[in-house]
Amino acid sequence: MKDKLEINLGLEGTYFSKSEICKIDGIKGKLYYFGYSIEDLTDKSNFEEVSYLLMNGYLPNRKKLSDFSHQMAEQRDIDNNVINFIKRMVGKSHPMHILSTAMDMVGSYDKKAESDNELNKTKAINIISKISSITAAIGSLSTNGKYTNPDASISHIENFLYMFNGIKPNMEATKLMDTMFILHAEHGSNASTFSSIVTASTLSDINSAIVSGINTLKGPLHGGADERALRMLYGIKEKPVQQYINKILENNGRIMGFGHRIYKTYDPRARIIRTMLKSLLPNANDEVKILADTAFNVEKEMKTRMEDRHIYPNLDFFSGQVYRYLDIPIEMFTPIFAASRSPGWCSHILEYWKNNRLIRPLFYYTGEVDLPYKRIGDR
Amino acid sequence: MKDKLEINLGLEGTYFSKSEICKIDGIKGKLYYFGYSIEDLTDKSNFEEVSYLLMNGYLPNRKKLSDFSHQMAEQRDIDNNVINFIKRMVGKSHPMHILSTAMDMVGSYDKKAESDNELNKTKAINIISKISSITAAIGSLSTNGKYTNPDASISHIENFLYMFNGIKPNMEATKLMDTMFILHAEHGSNASTFSSIVTASTLSDINSAIVSGINTLKGPLHGGADERALRMLYGIKEKPVQQYINKILENNGRIMGFGHRIYKTYDPRARIIRTMLKSLLPNANDEVKILADTAFNVEKEMKTRMEDRHIYPNLDFFSGQVYRYLDIPIEMFTPIFAASRSPGWCSHILEYWKNNRLIRPLFYYTGEVDLPYKRIGDR
Repeated sequence: MKDKLEINLGLEGTYFSKSEICKIDGIKGKLYYFGYSIEDLTDKSNFEEVSYLLMNGYLPNRKKLSDFSHQMAEQRDIDNNVINFIKRMVGKSHPMHILSTAMDMVGSYDKKAESDNELNKTKAINIISKISSITAAIGSLSTNGKYTNPDASISHIENFLYMFNGIKPNMEATKLMDTMFILHAEHGSNASTFSSIVTASTLSDINSAIVSGINTLKGPLHGGADERALRMLYGIKEKPVQQYINKILENNGRIMGFGHRIYKTYDPRARIIRTMLKSLLPNANDEVKILADTAFNVEKEMKTRMEDRHIYPNLDFFSGQVYRYLDIPIEMFTPIFAASRSPGWCSHILEYWKNNRLIRPLFYYTGEVDLPYKRIGDR
Repeated sequence: MKDKLEINLGLEGTYFSKSEICKIDGIKGKLYYFGYSIEDLTDKSNFEEVSYLLMNGYLPNRKKLSDFSHQMAEQRDIDNNVINFIKRMVGKSHPMHILSTAMDMVGSYDKKAESDNELNKTKAINIISKISSITAAIGSLSTNGKYTNPDASISHIENFLYMFNGIKPNMEATKLMDTMFILHAEHGSNASTFSSIVTASTLSDINSAIVSGINTLKGPLHGGADERALRMLYGIKEKPVQQYINKILENNGRIMGFGHRIYKTYDPRARIIRTMLKSLLPNANDEVKILADTAFNVEKEMKTRMEDRHIYPNLDFFSGQVYRYLDIPIEMFTPIFAASRSPGWCSHILEYWKNNRLIRPLFYYTGEVDLPYKRIGDR
């Protein structure tokens, strides 16, 4: 029996369930999806295979991967009503709002929304496929007002970039975006995944649970962080970096893109993106070069100040510069995060349902009881 | 330092934050909103005043209540695009799906979606007002295909029934529905409220957090329970009740509408609805009379079997019969639950933000690490 007065603020350090999906070793700086290291997966695998892994728990053979990719490709089309909604909303609302509403609509249009669980893996594939199409459509419609129909003959990531830009991507762009999708695909019980599981724990449907994930990811303390980190880098482009950092830290402010509740060493995902960013800089335009230069300076300065406190750059610190290299508008970063995280959300929902338990923690009550109800004239 | 291997399944018994909004005394069977008993509130207050209480923490004087009611009334109109979406979807999708998408659209149309927190109380009033209009519109459009414009000159509940039925309600219907709204307005850290808070904890916006609440409430283990309880009662209308109960319990099934994770005695809300139901039976039609008769028989039979185990009827067991007395279609029960719970959700989001902390519990990892990545041909 635990002490009833212990309050686990933010549920930090509280275990709420078992899982075999993701190991985050915050001390060694390692990350595994179903036992495979993030280094191996970004180096040797691709997003479709990683999605299969997250849905099934093992790596597929050629036949299984081909069937899975085919199934994903078949689900790429977006309902016309959803396209029209996106067309009406771009420029008027943040892309994350448009994405959550559009994905909620996908749930509304799902004729089998109330069906039993055997359909859920199929629904997950539909979600992973459609959220990328919808994100690309929002990106394209908000930048150039055009909608490009999906192409079922190319890979998931190629199609994403094709729908986003209206032209088929080259190999470099595809590999970069594929790596970004893999790096964001899964990360344990982060707030958006946990939110999806809370929704799923009432036996609500998988699509509704994903919408909870999207709406939770939207917050600046979670998925919005890479957008914020890049805006910070833009903001300090021309100032001396030391001075900027001192000013923020002296006012108890936060340097965006640093620190993580789990990692007490260098975030392995940040290390991968950092290496990638270094390798593409020779071909980058001035905007990206200046951003990266600022970022590396901030990192260096923060190292002297923060290494003792185990505060390092996280994933969000470098990802914005890779997205900018690919000419992705800043407001699309979080929707892309959502599209790439969708296999992780689905994986956790499906796993949790195998041993479902309603999630209902407690408040420690600090208010009154038995207050007398006075008539309105006597108040 | 707590034992790191302790897993709090479903977070049962785990305190995650302090709150002064709601006291649920599961032993004495008492419920308080900001210190006022649910008996006093249902007997002497009304839904608008209770919403004010939940937003502000104290009961208003005449002037404050009048200003608040006026502000609520001003927000009743629904955007035409949302009305058109509802028109397209009714009959094709469950009203809860339509409601979550429609409320997500309300967030998308919110021009100040990304604004700072000082607007949040105003946004909460908008949400509480609009979710009722939208729920009524879904109810009306799905039963008779008609949309009734809101009327700002009548009370929140009168307007809800007016938009739902197309005619102004009588005093009895208004009082009944008002009581149902108050009874459902707040209930501590239930799954939907917790889900709203998880979303809010990333500093996502209040509307997105409410959508998480709606999507979580949707599940049959939570808001869907009254719909399920009534369907059960319909199902056993003509059979001997004892026989039905024995069959379910022998197969380890669940009698819907019984038991609660917090209440280990009679649910005070169930007691209030039960009394209300008894009083209106003389004027009820045969459908409601038969349903209530079955319900009272089920309750009696369950008492002999379950009193030792502290399993009693909960709110959901009797609410369906009151809704049916008001001729509310069964699929509208959960959307009405959402509309009435919205002040509770908003109250908790606003309170949590005063001392915000990202909610991120942990999984206990049971999987592998360092699996060798084999090439696809070698699998």
